[in-house]
Order: sequence, then C-alpha cells, then structure tokens
Amino acid sequence: MTNPLSFALKDVAKGVAAAAVALLVSLPALAQTDPLPSWNDGPAKQGIVDFVARVTKEGGPDFVPQAKRLAVFDNDGTLWAEKPFYVQLFFAFDRVRALANQHPEWKTKEPFASILKGDYKAALSGGEHGIAEIVGATHAGITTDEFAEIVANWFATAKNPEKDRLFSKMDYQPMLEVLAYLRDNGFQTFIVSGGGIDFMRVFGEELYGIPPAQVVGSAGKLKFELKDGKPVLLKLPEVDFVDDGPGKPVGIQMHIGEQPIFAFGNSDGDLQMLQYTCLKPGPHYCAFVHHTDAKREWAYDRDSSVGRLDKGLDAAKEHDWTLVDMAKDWKTVFPAE
Amino acid sequence: MTNPLSFALKDVAKGVAAAAVALLVSLPALAQTDPLPSWNDGPAKQGIVDFVARVTKEGGPDFVPQAKRLAVFDNDGTLWAEKPFYVQLFFAFDRVRALANQHPEWKTKEPFASILKGDYKAALSGGEHGIAEIVGATHAGITTDEFAEIVANWFATAKNPEKDRLFSKMDYQPMLEVLAYLRDNGFQTFIVSGGGIDFMRVFGEELYGIPPAQVVGSAGKLKFELKDGKPVLLKLPEVDFVDDGPGKPVGIQMHIGEQPIFAFGNSDGDLQMLQYTCLKPGPHYCAFVHHTDAKREWAYDRDSSVGRLDKGLDAAKEHDWTLVDMAKDWKTVFPAE
Repeated sequence: MTNPLSFALKDVAKGVAAAAVALLVSLPALAQTDPLPSWNDGPAKQGIVDFVARVTKEGGPDFVPQAKRLAVFDNDGTLWAEKPFYVQLFFAFDRVRALANQHPEWKTKEPFASILKGDYKAALSGGEHGIAEIVGATHAGITTDEFAEIVANWFATAKNPEKDRLFSKMDYQPMLEVLAYLRDNGFQTFIVSGGGIDFMRVFGEELYGIPPAQVVGSAGKLKFELKDGKPVLLKLPEVDFVDDGPGKPVGIQMHIGEQPIFAFGNSDGDLQMLQYTCLKPGPHYCAFVHHTDAKREWAYDRDSSVGRLDKGLDAAKEHDWTLVDMAKDWKTVFPAE
Repeated sequence: MTNPLSFALKDVAKGVAAAAVALLVSLPALAQTDPLPSWNDGPAKQGIVDFVARVTKEGGPDFVPQAKRLAVFDNDGTLWAEKPFYVQLFFAFDRVRALANQHPEWKTKEPFASILKGDYKAALSGGEHGIAEIVGATHAGITTDEFAEIVANWFATAKNPEKDRLFSKMDYQPMLEVLAYLRDNGFQTFIVSGGGIDFMRVFGEELYGIPPAQVVGSAGKLKFELKDGKPVLLKLPEVDFVDDGPGKPVGIQMHIGEQPIFAFGNSDGDLQMLQYTCLKPGPHYCAFVHHTDAKREWAYDRDSSVGRLDKGLDAAKEHDWTLVDMAKDWKTVFPAE
C-alpha cells in the first residue's frame, strides 16, 4: 500500500521545487553581462551571439536540442598561436635535445643534426617524412602516462622564442570566451586538431575547459601491456590517424558520431571540417580566425607555410562564413600572464 | 558606475537561490527508492551500491570527482543478448539476402552461398577472413547516413530466431538500471564493444541512454567527399580498428583518454578492459555477467564459441572481481515488450 503521507510530502516538495527552479532560471536576467568582453562590437561578435540566440530559443525555427549543440574547434592558430612553428614541434625539438645523449648518431643524421644545431627550418625541409621521423623518435617507446608527464613538465617552462611568452599563455582570450559562452548555452565543445591527441589532452582541460574525451586529434598506434602486473599503453612509432584536412570530418565521425553545428578553424586544413558542418540543411555556424595582426600576433594567410588560409578564404566568401579579423575584432589577443 | 539597485537585487536573488538549492538537494531523501529493482538482494547488487556510495561520498577516502567517474560497458552479452550469434551478424545475414539480386555470383561464392541457404554455421566456419568479407560486403560502399537508416529500419522488425523476440527488446533490464543508477550518481557511461561503432550508435541512445560520442567500437575506414556539393562520409570496405581484447584499452584511450573506474563485461574479449580498469591503485569496480540462465536466456562460459568466458573466470577469482550470476542475481532479464 502506498503511504498517503509520503504522497502529500512529495506534492509539497514538488511545488517548492518548481518555485525554486523558476527563481533559479530567472537569475541570469539579473546578472546579464557581456559574454564576449574581449571582442570589439561588430559583425563577427554579433554573428556568434545571434547564432547562439537562435539555436537556444525554444519554439523558434532554428532551435537545436541541447544534446545536438556540438561545437568543434581547431587548435593551432584557432585557440592558440601556431607561429613560427606548431607548439608540438617545439616540444619535439626540445625532446630531441633531451634525448641526444642516448643517440650519438643524431649528431650526423638528419633531421636530428639540424635540430641539435638549432636550425629548425632545415630540420623541417624534409617534409612529412622528416616530421614523421621526429615524431616517432620523440613521441614513442614510452607509455601514455610517461608521455603525459613529460609534456606537462615541458609546458611548465617552455616559451615561444619570438614572443618570449610561455606557450601555455599563448591561447587566445577571445576564443576562451567563445568556448565558455557556448558551454553556458548548453553546447559541448570539442577540439578537432591535426595536433597529437595525447599531447593536447595534457593541457586541454586546464587551458580550455575541454576534458580528454572531447579532444580529437592525430594519433599513433598504441599497444596494451601488463608491465610488472600493471596495465599500461605503450606508444608505438607508427602513425595511426592524421586528423587534418579530409581527416577532420572522419575524426569527428569516429569520436563524436554526429555532425557539429558550429565550427571554428583558421587554415585550409580546417576547410573540410567547415564544409562538413555548414554545407548541410539546418542551422549552422562556421568561421575562420584570420591572422591580420602583425603587431600583437602574426599576419599571414594565402602564402604562409604554417597555417595557410587560401582555399578557405575563397570558400568563406562563397558560403558566407565569418572571417574573424584578429586586428579589428579582438580587443585583446592573449590572456594576462 | 555600478547601479546600487542591481547589486541589492543580486544579493536578494543569491539568498533565494541558496535556499532553493538546499531544497532541491533535500528532495531525493523524500523519494528514495530501490535504484536496482530488477536485482535480487545479494553480494552482486550490494557490491554495486557500495561502490557507488564510496566514490560519491565527499570527503571520504575513496571519493572520485564527478568528471572522473567513467564507466565502461561491453555490449554483446553484457548489455544485451549475443546468442545464437551477435546481433550484428544477423543484420549482416539479412543484408546479404537484401543485396543478393545485385550479386548473382553470391549463389555459388562462400560465405555468401551458405548465408543465402540459411546455414549460418557454415557461413561462419571461414573464421575471421569470412566475417571480414561479410562485413565488407554489407557495411561499406554507402555513406554513414545511409547505413544508419538501413540499420534503423532493420531494427524495427528484426527478431531473435530462438526467442522470437525483437532484437531491440533483448537488452537486459538489470543492466539498464545499472546504467541509469550510475548516471544519476554523476558517472559518464560508455559502451566499449567489439561491435561496429556506426551500428551501435543507431540504438545506443534509445536503448541505453548512451549518446553517439560515448560509443566506442570497431570501425571501418571512412572517406570524406562532397557529393553534389553535400558533405558525406563514405564507408570503405577496410577494417580500421578492432575494439576487442587488447584493443579495448586502446579504444578507451583513443576515445576517452582516461582510465575508467568501473567496467562491466561478460567474456574473455573484455579481460583487458577489466585489467585496465582494476589493476591500478585507487577505487575501481569490475564485473562479468556470468550467463548461467538456460531457462530465461542462455547458459555458457568456458566452452562457448560466442562470448567465451574462460581466462576471465580465472581472473575474476584471482582479483576478486564480481561474477553476476544471471539466474540468481537477476529478478527479470529482459524489459517488458
């Protein structure tokens, strides 16, 4: 038999709870502030705010249920700086130096010899094959836990040589605000980057508030082992997946399994991710960060070797995607150190 | 200048909000019910409840912050039935029949000829190579969206031939309760299965409340294309990743990026997942569903070709992992049809 008292108590509690929820929901109206304070007023800022308003308006024509509010962000050049080379390459260069004693042959063997001389341009002149050799020598032969610790230690002190600023402080303040703003509006935010997935997971949560499971990236093969009875994953020197260009929609499908409705990139390597997000029916938002700020950051687009934005510029024009003009649209670039 | 009225209003609102939160938090106490009603009282049920109590007790020695409460579940044989063959194989067999008109050569070509004759055992006698051929012929050459639609249509009517029950109603009611109970206690629940990731995502959300991004599985290679200007992902007939045995900890690292604290499996294919979860310091819970119920489901372990539990039985004994005795521990097996 049901206890009538417990029913009555439940009803009272329900009423109080409903009132409480109504009060809580009305709170934001009292405390409304600019969600994107580091953005100058203009079409770029307005476009983000308008899109979020449209997809979160219940009953509106563009309403998107919370579970489907999926936003994807490139990392290098979109969430943090990528010049003069990708941060992960600087990590690899420093790692080559740290391991040089164990590899006397590197003194005369390219691309390692050039790295040890500090001539990074020469080291990278071997193209993808050379980079694969560098990554294999510096990112493998250890467990995922050991790798994460090495990366974390490196980040504690490593600086961008051109700006003399910690790499961990070269994220873009305006983009941190976009990430938080989207999450405050029920979005899930994902990194979808050509960078190494195990590398980015070390800082994704602290820098961007993005947990490991929401980081999509390039990956090497892994091997499960019991080492003295303890389970470990060994990083092998073979590339498993390259999350760049046409690989980005593939990475999105593998990890997220649904099409995002919001995508932010900065280079031609992000073009297919933006096509995947925005060349379909239904509400969607796509934007490129356009590096126009030689003074505070760097200025580059069609002719750059790192982060080239060429086909993407044309596609943005054709499809009416947003171009964020860093010099004009961003009040500040980097967060306070 | 700050408006003093808005400040005063904010303070009032904060006080009301605190009271509201206190009320909401106290509600569950009024409505406390058995979270696992389909489980008989006993050590298996108690073990789950005790573990959840320990890791959610703030200030307790085994407290785990919400973001780290990661739970992984095998699918076939753990969340739903896997006999007489995996559900996905029945899908593939039906798909072979549906495509037979386009492939007259299948009439005399194995393993297709045996499938068309209804002799599934003979069709599977070719081992992994034969299964790869079946999967390649039935899971590729179409886009991910087309595949999802075909699978959804199939599930609407497909039945288990031995139980004459819809496959979509052969999930285990007690395990649905475990999934919901964990989520109610701040866990994220993931499927980590040897089954196809694109296949499981079709029903993961509806059946288990597990969204596509929390499904980890075996995968074929994908190719991004613009088809008449629309972005699609084409399923290629090449295996990309097998999420079984030692592949499961690898799949967990690739998709989740952290070690789970709770793992449920039912066969030797789950052994490494349980080792990865439970052979480490810190609070953890591991269990196998032991198929002991020939009457309501099926009874099998060490000698079964599908879902063999042999090394796992020994490991469970060695490491004191839970063995869920289906016949004894489960009040009901399947949900009401």
